[in-house]
Amino acid sequence: MNTLKSLRTTFLEELKSKVTATEPAGLYDPVHYILDLGGKRLRPLLTLMSAEMYGATAKDAMNAAIAVEVFHNFTLLHDDIMDAADLRRGKETVHKKWDVNTGILTGDAMLIMAYRLFEDYDKDKFYQLNKVFSRTALEVCEGQQHDVDFETRDDVSVPEYLNMIKLKTSVLVGCALQMGAIIAGVDEKEQELIYDYGINLGLAFQLMDDYLDAFGDPETFGKEVGGDIRENKKTYLYLKSIENNDCATELKEWFALHFENMTEEQIDEKKETVKVFFEQSGGAKATLDAIESYTQKALKNIEELSIAPESKKQLTDFSLQLMGRKS
Amino acid sequence: MNTLKSLRTTFLEELKSKVTATEPAGLYDPVHYILDLGGKRLRPLLTLMSAEMYGATAKDAMNAAIAVEVFHNFTLLHDDIMDAADLRRGKETVHKKWDVNTGILTGDAMLIMAYRLFEDYDKDKFYQLNKVFSRTALEVCEGQQHDVDFETRDDVSVPEYLNMIKLKTSVLVGCALQMGAIIAGVDEKEQELIYDYGINLGLAFQLMDDYLDAFGDPETFGKEVGGDIRENKKTYLYLKSIENNDCATELKEWFALHFENMTEEQIDEKKETVKVFFEQSGGAKATLDAIESYTQKALKNIEELSIAPESKKQLTDFSLQLMGRKS
Repeated sequence: MNTLKSLRTTFLEELKSKVTATEPAGLYDPVHYILDLGGKRLRPLLTLMSAEMYGATAKDAMNAAIAVEVFHNFTLLHDDIMDAADLRRGKETVHKKWDVNTGILTGDAMLIMAYRLFEDYDKDKFYQLNKVFSRTALEVCEGQQHDVDFETRDDVSVPEYLNMIKLKTSVLVGCALQMGAIIAGVDEKEQELIYDYGINLGLAFQLMDDYLDAFGDPETFGKEVGGDIRENKKTYLYLKSIENNDCATELKEWFALHFENMTEEQIDEKKETVKVFFEQSGGAKATLDAIESYTQKALKNIEELSIAPESKKQLTDFSLQLMGRKS
Repeated sequence: MNTLKSLRTTFLEELKSKVTATEPAGLYDPVHYILDLGGKRLRPLLTLMSAEMYGATAKDAMNAAIAVEVFHNFTLLHDDIMDAADLRRGKETVHKKWDVNTGILTGDAMLIMAYRLFEDYDKDKFYQLNKVFSRTALEVCEGQQHDVDFETRDDVSVPEYLNMIKLKTSVLVGCALQMGAIIAGVDEKEQELIYDYGINLGLAFQLMDDYLDAFGDPETFGKEVGGDIRENKKTYLYLKSIENNDCATELKEWFALHFENMTEEQIDEKKETVKVFFEQSGGAKATLDAIESYTQKALKNIEELSIAPESKKQLTDFSLQLMGRKS
């Protein structure tokens, strides 16, 4: 079994060698640009790990892993347009460096390119991979739509929020893992087990992201700490905090302020005040509890898998490291 | 064999019954809206006709036909955003009725929905349908990119233009026909023959569209006559006209004027003048010759197909009617 580091190195080499289209440059230059921006490559690594754990090779799973990464970057590209985001991983977003039309068309092409990467598999695996991929891709679109809808709603419930992040984030983690299992030829029941692990891992991961947005270390978080507070994002942290009646009114007032009308000093003050409310209300603790709960569920899923003990250990270590904990 | 009219009726019923997702409404309402806008349904009808000619039923080919139509409407939706078009078939475009973000996300979902429609086929046909569909879809994106690139280029050649319209329009016509053949289980050689017919038919059809944009009957053309002239589109008609040195300089001057800076009277004058140049230069005749040439190629392709004589007659009649000619 390869180490994560060697898997990542191999993946990055193969990504370069298998996504090679260049003409027309106006279409394909942005594809290479966004794929070269970096990132943790979490999803494709999960596909490769999963395949190896079930007895296939990383090479067998490479095309599917690349498909997952190309698809993920397609979603980032179109989401950045929708969010009017100027920066992605510290570099200009595609629609900023080129223009919105380029961003739309390049994203479309990437979605199709992802599908084409399955064509090297035999027809049975091609069918299975396609089916889980299409279902997942549509769910990701639905999750994005829920996210958009929630921006203008005041009555988003915690279950609705969890369903949204499940669709927007977790299903692709589950899909990435399931694809590795499909390539290794395991049965559907086992595929579902590893998919479920991905769902719980993805939920824990996204809730951790919500938590770190407020309480993370600016040195290591990688994004603007308090960015969700700036933009009045109704995250799990916020939704659990306003369940506390002592804090709800004031928190809602802070979240009615728009950053466009505020100075950076006022925004900093808002961030500090809101963070105090998040802690006092019990919302911060509730979020940490939920992260712990989904992490435990994910670890329990690992125990149920039909993989070797050392694979279980690798997956457990990986999960805990992802949550910022030592195993 | 069904008549075109009955095929269209069945298609419209099945389109309604097989594209049924409703939630989240913000994502799926625009899908139903654009699919209900109408149109000739040319491409899905070709899939159904092709399947029947090769011995399958329209029912067998229905999912693929719907996939082609859903995909075609996805391209219209994203193209309308890129062109900042307010109207489509006399109704508001999706990004106008909702907003650009809705248009982007709904389009993405439609592309995935098109892929999912193949899932009811057996694995062998699923593979074949997917492969031709993906290749075609990416070519359509490339065609759109060439079209965008040509807007800012002064040196577009006639072969480059023909390649662009082939990618943007003809390959999907060929793909629609080939899918019917795949569903009927014919061999690859025969699939290629009917695909080639689609390419030539599509080229003739698009060149006719270029011609009618200038010289069509406002009562029946369905779009603004002279719209391409208003927008300085470098169509086949224009490119062949500027090959004539006596007209090139003045035509280029007219095509350097931007409609944003002109009154409607000035635009009408431009249209009339440019049309005279198109005729005097020989560009109009060259376009009609090219339409005739591609139509003849398409009719010759029909002769080579391994289908019944009455099917050949149906396809020939269909081709000629599409070109606005009686058979």
